[in-house]
Amino acid sequence: MGLLEGIGSPADVRALAPRQVEALAGEIRTFLVESVSRTGGHLGPNLGVVELTIAMHRVFESPADTFVFDTGHQSYVHKLLTGRQDFSQLRRRDGLSGYPSRAESAHDVVENSHASTALSWADGIAKANELQGRGDRSVVAVIGDGALTGGMAWEALNNIADGQDRRLVIVVNDNGRSYDPTIGGLAHHLDTLRTTQGYENVLSWGKRTLRRSGPPGRAAYDALHGLKKGIKDVVAPQGMFEDLGLKYVGPVDGHDEAAVERALRRARTYAGPVIVHVITEKGRGYTPAEQDIADRFHAVGQIHPETGLPLAPSRFGWTSVFADEIVRIGRRRSDVVAVTAAMLQPVGLAPFAAEFPSRVFDVGIAEQHAATSAAGMAFGGLHPVVAVYATFLNRAFDQVLMDVALHRAGVTFVLDRAGLTGDDGASHNGMWDMAMLGVVPGLRLAAPRDEATLRTALREAVDVDDAPTVVRYPKGAVGDAIPALDEVDGVDVLARTGTGERSVLVVAVGAMAPTALEVADLLGAHGLRVTVVDPRWVLPVSPGLVKLVGDHDHVVTIEDGVVDGGIGAIVAQRTREAGIGTPVQSIGIPRAFLDHATRDQLVGTLRLRPADIARDVLGALGES
Amino acid sequence: MGLLEGIGSPADVRALAPRQVEALAGEIRTFLVESVSRTGGHLGPNLGVVELTIAMHRVFESPADTFVFDTGHQSYVHKLLTGRQDFSQLRRRDGLSGYPSRAESAHDVVENSHASTALSWADGIAKANELQGRGDRSVVAVIGDGALTGGMAWEALNNIADGQDRRLVIVVNDNGRSYDPTIGGLAHHLDTLRTTQGYENVLSWGKRTLRRSGPPGRAAYDALHGLKKGIKDVVAPQGMFEDLGLKYVGPVDGHDEAAVERALRRARTYAGPVIVHVITEKGRGYTPAEQDIADRFHAVGQIHPETGLPLAPSRFGWTSVFADEIVRIGRRRSDVVAVTAAMLQPVGLAPFAAEFPSRVFDVGIAEQHAATSAAGMAFGGLHPVVAVYATFLNRAFDQVLMDVALHRAGVTFVLDRAGLTGDDGASHNGMWDMAMLGVVPGLRLAAPRDEATLRTALREAVDVDDAPTVVRYPKGAVGDAIPALDEVDGVDVLARTGTGERSVLVVAVGAMAPTALEVADLLGAHGLRVTVVDPRWVLPVSPGLVKLVGDHDHVVTIEDGVVDGGIGAIVAQRTREAGIGTPVQSIGIPRAFLDHATRDQLVGTLRLRPADIARDVLGALGES
Repeated sequence: MGLLEGIGSPADVRALAPRQVEALAGEIRTFLVESVSRTGGHLGPNLGVVELTIAMHRVFESPADTFVFDTGHQSYVHKLLTGRQDFSQLRRRDGLSGYPSRAESAHDVVENSHASTALSWADGIAKANELQGRGDRSVVAVIGDGALTGGMAWEALNNIADGQDRRLVIVVNDNGRSYDPTIGGLAHHLDTLRTTQGYENVLSWGKRTLRRSGPPGRAAYDALHGLKKGIKDVVAPQGMFEDLGLKYVGPVDGHDEAAVERALRRARTYAGPVIVHVITEKGRGYTPAEQDIADRFHAVGQIHPETGLPLAPSRFGWTSVFADEIVRIGRRRSDVVAVTAAMLQPVGLAPFAAEFPSRVFDVGIAEQHAATSAAGMAFGGLHPVVAVYATFLNRAFDQVLMDVALHRAGVTFVLDRAGLTGDDGASHNGMWDMAMLGVVPGLRLAAPRDEATLRTALREAVDVDDAPTVVRYPKGAVGDAIPALDEVDGVDVLARTGTGERSVLVVAVGAMAPTALEVADLLGAHGLRVTVVDPRWVLPVSPGLVKLVGDHDHVVTIEDGVVDGGIGAIVAQRTREAGIGTPVQSIGIPRAFLDHATRDQLVGTLRLRPADIARDVLGALGES
Repeated sequence: MGLLEGIGSPADVRALAPRQVEALAGEIRTFLVESVSRTGGHLGPNLGVVELTIAMHRVFESPADTFVFDTGHQSYVHKLLTGRQDFSQLRRRDGLSGYPSRAESAHDVVENSHASTALSWADGIAKANELQGRGDRSVVAVIGDGALTGGMAWEALNNIADGQDRRLVIVVNDNGRSYDPTIGGLAHHLDTLRTTQGYENVLSWGKRTLRRSGPPGRAAYDALHGLKKGIKDVVAPQGMFEDLGLKYVGPVDGHDEAAVERALRRARTYAGPVIVHVITEKGRGYTPAEQDIADRFHAVGQIHPETGLPLAPSRFGWTSVFADEIVRIGRRRSDVVAVTAAMLQPVGLAPFAAEFPSRVFDVGIAEQHAATSAAGMAFGGLHPVVAVYATFLNRAFDQVLMDVALHRAGVTFVLDRAGLTGDDGASHNGMWDMAMLGVVPGLRLAAPRDEATLRTALREAVDVDDAPTVVRYPKGAVGDAIPALDEVDGVDVLARTGTGERSVLVVAVGAMAPTALEVADLLGAHGLRVTVVDPRWVLPVSPGLVKLVGDHDHVVTIEDGVVDGGIGAIVAQRTREAGIGTPVQSIGIPRAFLDHATRDQLVGTLRLRPADIARDVLGALGES
């Protein structure tokens, strides 16, 4: 060690002699591997950008020059070089965020980890620089090749090209496609580049590297193949960039720091928008000696693309239940097809893709297209199942509303990672879906409570052919089965407890059912007569549920979504419209952005523990 | 007449001899000019696609081959050729829709009139065709050059190029840019095409045409200039399309029906995705003899880009108040800049652009980029005012939430055409904004009730530098000033009436204030003591308003937004959370897609007239 400890700010990086840079890169790699293997986090993406980030800090002067990282999970090296070297609490409450964070540093700008936004941010900042007399400062946006498939990136490129006087450097970080690749049309424009010297240099660098790094064989072949594929995909847009009038520098070997510095200096000298195309290798620097980590790295199919942690969902995980049930449905129904947005593995569609390769469509990081092309498929007689993370459906609100719902298209949306996800921070919590979808006419939304109800909900959803259906469930393990005692007015009754005079109806939304049952026990012990129900299909609110509300003295809804405009709010609204005076107390996530913390910590802070909820209910009833 | 009347279905179009086609085109033009000048509607765009639409129906066989029109306002000719020739009630209730309508015809598919969706629809339908054994059928999508600036179009192109076996024809209808042009990077790729024969042919066609159609002069020069510009803009992507691996045919003179037919037949023969680039002239066929229409056509700056009707907003229109006030603010505050998405004129930003040309950014049909680049500008020290139609902000929900609100960016969104707009049909009603934005943490939304409160709201909005602010107002004329009697707990009191025992609080949201005042009079006459208030800033719900609720026996909220999750729902929720038992009755637009009708008809159907609302309130109070 030694060099890294001496880096307190980017000025220290710039002060290094060129010969010291390689040593610094080595120290950073060692640090990352040791540190992230302890805490979890995005290891591969950050190992890929060590030299790139050093070069950026040597050529530009952050924060006067502004760095914008798309999705932001590759900002660890940037953190290390900007005075943040305590990674012991990474992604934990009060520790460093796994993404850029304005609260942490003036060197951080964009905290949102949804993809494809960086170029729009950069365009806005460059416009502000121009108007505010800071036209000599640069904005540097780092975006992965995968994120270029997102429509926002296209909108931004078209606008950036229009501002030829603005100093804006777009670093395309080509790491062989993050997430699952959808090749798309970009791959077709390959021939011109294959013959250039740059491409050959990169290829031979790749071969040399692999030769150095261990015994040749299947893994090495795969890696090289992947590398070539990566180059194909990213090099492809070159012609297009030029068509747009954007200067282009590259491709550059992203692990040759001096070469990256040269390219960035050239880009900086040119006082307008420039693309710098950098070829990096995700996970660069793992050594075979670190066997457990190496395994993780090589087993790419099993790694969570965002966290780098082993994916292999527990046998009882929600994702794996979906993965299994959708295959069963697919066997029975040849019209059922799957659509995903660069998330084939993480949402559990790999088994379906293996069995029905022609019936799965990965559209890239393009949720808008996923939704609307699904509407088109439904028009053509298919029943598409669009599987995405809950938080990313926000990107397609207009399309769900205007293309799917307005056209009464039978499209099923499966929302994984709904509710609180915790340590990925504010922009990954899947807490907005129910409130957002609550305004969509005709839409039906199911929140299953256990494995059996998830399977049933999916089967019911694909049977609806004249409206959008949504099935949403959280991250992680599925709990024990929660059988219904019976069904009243079409609503599952999960428990009846207590014998008091006053009756309380507890409405459990999806995975909050276990919490609801505990709340009921606590309330029952306080002399209340409690019924716990699960409507399973929570949108639209059923007349049966409204009737049940009218049969009780007090109602509590418990959901893991934002409470404003959520299920509880709609239950209350239907109740009022029906002229029923029973007060509806809605428990859920407050309308706020949540700092990163574990899910349990968040549940505690938000007062969503059974004891908290019971206390609040008793308070509302004047029994506390 | 004669030919047109004999066209009962596309088969009749195909049966015409080639020499009859020109005559049919002439009849259609005469019909459109006479009919639409009576009813209003999109005249120019439809005159531009007469030959194109005829050619499509002669080459392909709708509905077995599927036609998808982007935004859909150029589907009048398609309607005429598919058995719909009664245009007397166009855009009126029970008359023909101004857009494609599935209820009208099996030849119509996509009803959504938000831009840039057609290619995604087409991709989905082509995928379904392939899987369902209809791979020999074609999907033909017609999309304007302007809509290609939208990110969705890019997402779709990237995916379409991936399906080289699918018969998908993309007709790029280059009509010299619809809406206000943002040139963007596309215009830079011009040189190669300028030298081609095709371009020269089109140019000389343009010159010949202009010579024929009337005396040369300024107007002719402008038209030719505009035509050239249009070609520049649309021809530009050719290289890019080829980079993506999409076959390209064109450019074709879109008013030479035989040439368009040839191009489409070539595209049809090629069993994969093809772009057919057609140059059309918006408004083609107006003759100077029809002076009133001709004036309208030539005065392009004054025509509503969607309806073709004279724009010139009434001196008292909401849009013109905004147009005036934003200029005043701009004079005082050099950091205030304007952003719009291809709607510079319609949202009233033309005066601001004239006075501060360097401070206005038209990003194209790219609402996502508009929102996020505005966040970037705010980071850079500017205060951007993003002015769009209310319905189009749906496109940027994720960006408002994750880029603007999460980053506490001081960005003001100005939503024109909020509430019921009526005759443009379901996808133009600006009824979703309040419910959608109600979940966004930190966001503040003002709904001004008259000119003075609009001006004040704008001034207050641009003073907020740590959160998104929204000012929303409806289409049309501003009513008389409604001064406040006084202010209680920060809430404007508009009226106090009646002397009964029971007290009713009427909460007026924005432009519903006149309705609320009438409701109050009716309730007062029924022996109720009524107070009418206007919180002006309706999100977040103020503690003052919640306190007022608690001081009354019954509360009625009246809003012109979807009632589920709307302002009334949030008032009710805050009230319940405060332990206040006063019932909150929320009046608004039901969660449904509304058929096209006049605004007044919709108000009647939805029971939003004062008498309806008063009756419903009395019913809820048991006093009816």
